[in-house]
Amino acid sequence: MRWTEIDNMTCSIARALSVVGDCWTLLILRELFSRSRRFDEFQAQLRLSPYILSERLNKLIKHGVVRRRKYQDRPVRYEYRLTEKGLELYPLLLALLRWGDKWMAAETGPPVRLYHASCGHEMTPELVCSECGSRLHPRDVRPEYDPATAARRAAAVAKART
Amino acid sequence: MRWTEIDNMTCSIARALSVVGDCWTLLILRELFSRSRRFDEFQAQLRLSPYILSERLNKLIKHGVVRRRKYQDRPVRYEYRLTEKGLELYPLLLALLRWGDKWMAAETGPPVRLYHASCGHEMTPELVCSECGSRLHPRDVRPEYDPATAARRAAAVAKART
Repeated sequence: MRWTEIDNMTCSIARALSVVGDCWTLLILRELFSRSRRFDEFQAQLRLSPYILSERLNKLIKHGVVRRRKYQDRPVRYEYRLTEKGLELYPLLLALLRWGDKWMAAETGPPVRLYHASCGHEMTPELVCSECGSRLHPRDVRPEYDPATAARRAAAVAKART
Repeated sequence: MRWTEIDNMTCSIARALSVVGDCWTLLILRELFSRSRRFDEFQAQLRLSPYILSERLNKLIKHGVVRRRKYQDRPVRYEYRLTEKGLELYPLLLALLRWGDKWMAAETGPPVRLYHASCGHEMTPELVCSECGSRLHPRDVRPEYDPATAARRAAAVAKART
């Protein structure tokens, strides 16, 4: 399968990756969540080529993750903001941040700390069950496929083993 | 900057991406969390070339995310399992799943539902503050850089604008 076919897969993870499954894209999103808004800010923080940056921003705009807004007329200048769809990528970025902090940490410790404005404390994000509120561990969560997906997955393995 | 230099960046997100910032890698992780363990299972579900699959698995092993275990002697066969470091990527996969379910959904609805074994309910994962337990929204979280990182970020923008 080619990667460009991925967004036709039924899997939501694959579909999500067809939009955000690229390192530069995720670092641009990191910048947007860090309150960077301008092309030259992204470029300065990420040191990537204008071509790659503009290509990635356009893809995010096309998918409705980012919107471009003119903030000056002469000369014309634009800024980039997360849409609602983009803001909802926050758990993804936090998951990368936390895992990186814990498992890939620099000797100097985490370079960024998070403060929760609502309660005023330094905090770490935690993943909990929407129903009982307790912390989620992978062994406690059972995925259940819809019948069509379950059948297709079983058939794929059966076919490979014949 | 080249992508191969990324793991030297101080940013934990960038460091995490240097290990898992690749679509095939994330789909292999999806399979591991879906209880797939064998090379031919990954290949059957993902339809990717043995070369790419083996290259990605080796990278995950090298970084301690996956371990390889011999489960049969004649012929020799191996299975792949998540390590503790790998299991802790669960929030990342759930974040992709949820976002894909909500924003990139197929017409037939989400192909997988999650059940929490501890409480027995179908559930959605939620991200909460470790201190006050309330749901996290990006606008409520203030990132604070360590002084060296803050200075470097300010200098990067200043330099780009001179």
